[in-house]
Amino acid sequence: MSSPEDSLIAKYFAPLATAPGAFALSDDAAIFNAASDDVVVTADAVVAGVHFLPDDPPDKIARKALRVNLSDLAAKGAEPAGFVMTLALQSIDDAWLAPFSHALGEDAAQFKCPLLGGDTVSTPGPLSISITAFGRVPQGTMVRRNNAKPGDVVVVTGTIGDAAFGLDLLQGRVKADASASAYLTDRYRVPQPRNALASLVRTHAHAAMDVSDGLAGDLAKLCRASGVSADVRLADVPLSEAARGLIKSGAESIERVITGGDDYEILCTMPSASAQRFIAEAKAQNVAATIIGEIVSGHAPPRFLRADGQPIVLLRFAYSHF
Amino acid sequence: MSSPEDSLIAKYFAPLATAPGAFALSDDAAIFNAASDDVVVTADAVVAGVHFLPDDPPDKIARKALRVNLSDLAAKGAEPAGFVMTLALQSIDDAWLAPFSHALGEDAAQFKCPLLGGDTVSTPGPLSISITAFGRVPQGTMVRRNNAKPGDVVVVTGTIGDAAFGLDLLQGRVKADASASAYLTDRYRVPQPRNALASLVRTHAHAAMDVSDGLAGDLAKLCRASGVSADVRLADVPLSEAARGLIKSGAESIERVITGGDDYEILCTMPSASAQRFIAEAKAQNVAATIIGEIVSGHAPPRFLRADGQPIVLLRFAYSHF
Repeated sequence: MSSPEDSLIAKYFAPLATAPGAFALSDDAAIFNAASDDVVVTADAVVAGVHFLPDDPPDKIARKALRVNLSDLAAKGAEPAGFVMTLALQSIDDAWLAPFSHALGEDAAQFKCPLLGGDTVSTPGPLSISITAFGRVPQGTMVRRNNAKPGDVVVVTGTIGDAAFGLDLLQGRVKADASASAYLTDRYRVPQPRNALASLVRTHAHAAMDVSDGLAGDLAKLCRASGVSADVRLADVPLSEAARGLIKSGAESIERVITGGDDYEILCTMPSASAQRFIAEAKAQNVAATIIGEIVSGHAPPRFLRADGQPIVLLRFAYSHF
Repeated sequence: MSSPEDSLIAKYFAPLATAPGAFALSDDAAIFNAASDDVVVTADAVVAGVHFLPDDPPDKIARKALRVNLSDLAAKGAEPAGFVMTLALQSIDDAWLAPFSHALGEDAAQFKCPLLGGDTVSTPGPLSISITAFGRVPQGTMVRRNNAKPGDVVVVTGTIGDAAFGLDLLQGRVKADASASAYLTDRYRVPQPRNALASLVRTHAHAAMDVSDGLAGDLAKLCRASGVSADVRLADVPLSEAARGLIKSGAESIERVITGGDDYEILCTMPSASAQRFIAEAKAQNVAATIIGEIVSGHAPPRFLRADGQPIVLLRFAYSHF
């Protein structure tokens, strides 16, 4: 009596629906109650061949699909509350669905973001996964993009550029030793969303967003929304050892670091005194945070300054789909 | 400086983001606050060539994409609160996007369900639209599938089978006169979600869901979730004049009516006395509601009875994607 679609949902996804309001995916809708909190909503879709490589391992695709959304919640200062997923598949392939759903469940548990519902549809096109994630913040405390102030410092978490270099490695545009290659490709495939820092972002940041389309373009968006500009010192942009090695050898460039995208780190601005506390408290959560520049008044696009103080010229600030 | 993607969003979709918490789509996330209400969440995706025909008019595709979700909210007794959308496009086509976004905005306004956010991605595959819709109900009052009681009557809104016949007409499997054809194909392309009845469903229904995969299959799901069975009198299943004509001529069958899908009507069960009030109050909202059978004890699949009291044999209860 059950359709193949129902069986698929019961087998692979109902076990992930651990919240009482998800009704084990047995109803048409889920409920949750945020009491007086604001519900923060974000949606990101990933498409095979566009956001991940069609032959990427299914467990890593699952983690990326959820984590790009968790990263948005982290940057907004929101605690994860749950997600819904629409999965467009060409066919039911157990060898793919089993590791996909298992890894998705592990991440849902780790980030306390249970599956609430969704839809599974057939498509003649590429595999695609669209996730809408919900978070919670005390009313009125979501951190927006549009409140950066001249005098704020610009802070990023983690390291920048790894994912872009990882994609270049996966697509054969550059080469690296096995250890650097493993590290960088994993940074492309499996983002590390900084949800541990959500309350710190809420407490300290004037403005925040996650870096998904490239640091330069995303900082330009934050500045435009805030009516300010920024000066970033390229030498201060935090790089992994692996990324630094590829730049030193000439295989990659600092321009690629700041325009590459897929970093899923938090970009935020705050007063200098707050930044010291933010950095120390982030470190206590095992997350590096680094001051890379300052917000300045004006409406020019942000400048990225070389060691000699001269800005580099960027032909393209960010990834665009079209 | 703005990417084509940002321009597309600003031009076509920011005007639809009328809720204050949508920030005119200028941030990474939206907020809404449901106070003590339960937030009801539902997600449905539509894919070109699967859920709509690739050459369907863009305004009708927009309405269908939103309305299939509104229909879920209506059946759960929830008042629409907003939606997020991920749109996967092959390219930016203004001649398609302009009527699509205009109609989507009209429906968002009509159903008081504003756009809160989303994501626009490129795809080499078919156009697809994934919508997550939010509704609100007073805490604990969402109407589930799993509470139908023996002795309840089974009620459906509107008429059943029109959309399946409309698809058959669009795909050339049957023919009808121009007026019937226009009516039925419109029923396929543009569902009429019964959101006006949400509070009536909350007040009167023991169990409810929308009819999207076919009356027979959806009633079977409701019965299975409730641990009951049902007897439906085929002669009482409400048909439009146009649908009745196609059955009378032999071009279509009652089996197709109850297994065809895409109806987006409310299927619900309630005590007989409540049903009289439900039907009268629905009529006051200009929506027909009809008793088609009764919930009975047992675990057998629902029976669909001919005029002679014999059940028909269904080879397939519902649409499945796989």
